[in-house]
Amino acid sequence: MKPNERDQRAATTEDELLATLRRVFSGDHPGVRLGIGDDAAVVDTREGQAVLTADILVEGVHYDRTLISPRDLGAKAIVVNVSDVAAMGASPRFALLSVALPPDADAAWVVELEGGVRAACDEYALTMVGGDLSSGPVAVVSVAVMGEVAPGRYVTRSGARPGDRVVVTGTLGASAGGLALARASGSAARRALLSAAGRSLMEAHVRPVARVGEGRTLAVSGATAMMDVSDGLAIDLGRICAASGVGARLRTADVPVAPELIEVREILGVDPLELALGGGEDYELLATLPAARVAEAAAALDERFGCRLTEIGEIMDGDGLTAVEADGRDRPLEAKGWDHLARR
Amino acid sequence: MKPNERDQRAATTEDELLATLRRVFSGDHPGVRLGIGDDAAVVDTREGQAVLTADILVEGVHYDRTLISPRDLGAKAIVVNVSDVAAMGASPRFALLSVALPPDADAAWVVELEGGVRAACDEYALTMVGGDLSSGPVAVVSVAVMGEVAPGRYVTRSGARPGDRVVVTGTLGASAGGLALARASGSAARRALLSAAGRSLMEAHVRPVARVGEGRTLAVSGATAMMDVSDGLAIDLGRICAASGVGARLRTADVPVAPELIEVREILGVDPLELALGGGEDYELLATLPAARVAEAAAALDERFGCRLTEIGEIMDGDGLTAVEADGRDRPLEAKGWDHLARR
Repeated sequence: MKPNERDQRAATTEDELLATLRRVFSGDHPGVRLGIGDDAAVVDTREGQAVLTADILVEGVHYDRTLISPRDLGAKAIVVNVSDVAAMGASPRFALLSVALPPDADAAWVVELEGGVRAACDEYALTMVGGDLSSGPVAVVSVAVMGEVAPGRYVTRSGARPGDRVVVTGTLGASAGGLALARASGSAARRALLSAAGRSLMEAHVRPVARVGEGRTLAVSGATAMMDVSDGLAIDLGRICAASGVGARLRTADVPVAPELIEVREILGVDPLELALGGGEDYELLATLPAARVAEAAAALDERFGCRLTEIGEIMDGDGLTAVEADGRDRPLEAKGWDHLARR
Repeated sequence: MKPNERDQRAATTEDELLATLRRVFSGDHPGVRLGIGDDAAVVDTREGQAVLTADILVEGVHYDRTLISPRDLGAKAIVVNVSDVAAMGASPRFALLSVALPPDADAAWVVELEGGVRAACDEYALTMVGGDLSSGPVAVVSVAVMGEVAPGRYVTRSGARPGDRVVVTGTLGASAGGLALARASGSAARRALLSAAGRSLMEAHVRPVARVGEGRTLAVSGATAMMDVSDGLAIDLGRICAASGVGARLRTADVPVAPELIEVREILGVDPLELALGGGEDYELLATLPAARVAEAAAALDERFGCRLTEIGEIMDGDGLTAVEADGRDRPLEAKGWDHLARR
């Protein structure tokens, strides 16, 4: 840290940072009566239903500060919440941002973080209306989002019925692959990271995308259950099954593995399918649909968003997940995935 | 940590803890369509306005783990947010709780924290509808609250006008006094801490109370500006003045100093008035009222809540805070108080 940066940091008080926040998030926004800077924000509400969600990102647990810039971190903190809203079939409206600043974060770090938050808010038509600012031993970014949904049109995890088809948007495993590649040592790994495939995997990890329009479309297309794949396909499908009181058969050969993983599989030393099944943070949507509506939903996603929808299995009576292997054999599917407490 | 506690912790996964959360916060709650356990909660909204606020409590910054139990910490995380809602003249409705668990927190720690959160939610008719759970290097408790307010009836910090009277509920300085006493060393300090006055001060620090009914009453009584005293009277009155584009004269002899501070002043070695002016976390309401309405507001608070309302100064043209001393002399009032970034 250069001396003048040091001075800058020492001069940064909470009120000054809040003033910066107010500037970054200023401007008229529909539905906001009172934004950042008071005890609370005031927003207009309509007769109907709102969705509420919150996610916390902790340095060293959810991310490695050497692998993600404060700008990408700010954007990601918004995206993971928007993804939860999308998984309900709802639209994000208002956000609250609470940040603990690590000891070495100067004003520039905060401005970068806020810039990323602002860009993601703009992208998803979300308005930042308030929050809190503190110091801390490591960076913690905690976001809460309020969204809107047409009354009764939200999609939970608990509506999957036997016979429903299991579908997933996009491809899986890229985020976990990018992280694994960034953590791998050696010159081959470094070259792979700099290749087009490697950059694409890393992009998936540091700049994930939330599927808001896709979520609304799946809801309209009759999704009986939906969630976003944040902890890994196997663990998250297990959650839909547990919430719905059903089981599922998953055809592993049909799981849409991120194609870039194939290119770097030797350097990773991990089966790309394992990353697709167990890697978290893809933020794709996992849904169940009546069999008769899968084709319609896939066509709508393709046409409106250029988004692939893949049928990967079927909901069954009973409980538990079964993997149907490429050779037709069944095996129990272990619900391996990302548990945010397992790393303690 | 005993071996069986160690085992208990090792066996605690995110899903198990979420199941605990669901049990603790189960039951039917008005307006909640979908509570904890899905990607987001779904709540009913009315045509009108909502208030949104968030606060983050970081171990070592906002609290010392040797001085507050997980149960009190959980309750306090709710109260500080409810206090922000109260300061708008609004009523709390729904809460989201995000927690980073420190390495040595076992399942019992989490259950205690949740118990405190639950008790505070019950006390303020607030429903916990979701959140997030993570590990972390220290405990972080991040809460967001949504509240309701009659359209256009919220009170901001920016409406104070010259001639308005400055009023404050309750007494000030007790929370800071309790903290100072707990941190003081020596047998005299320990005795003082165990005295009735000491226990009362410590209670103010670990179990603060939010003034929800009082906030609504002050709003109805014509409060032109309002906020809660979280960072200290001087700094917070400075914020009202800055937001309103006015100055203020504060009669220091009229500031309602917590009486218990007088009893332990020698042990503390601090002027009780300084604690009342600069100590944070009292969560009393600081408001400005037209002079003609002060008596009515004070009578209403006393009658309905047994809550004292004290007139402590006047809003002036210009800017800056002036302290009017007991001897009638003026001095500039330094906006000393609690800056959550100053400790870095």
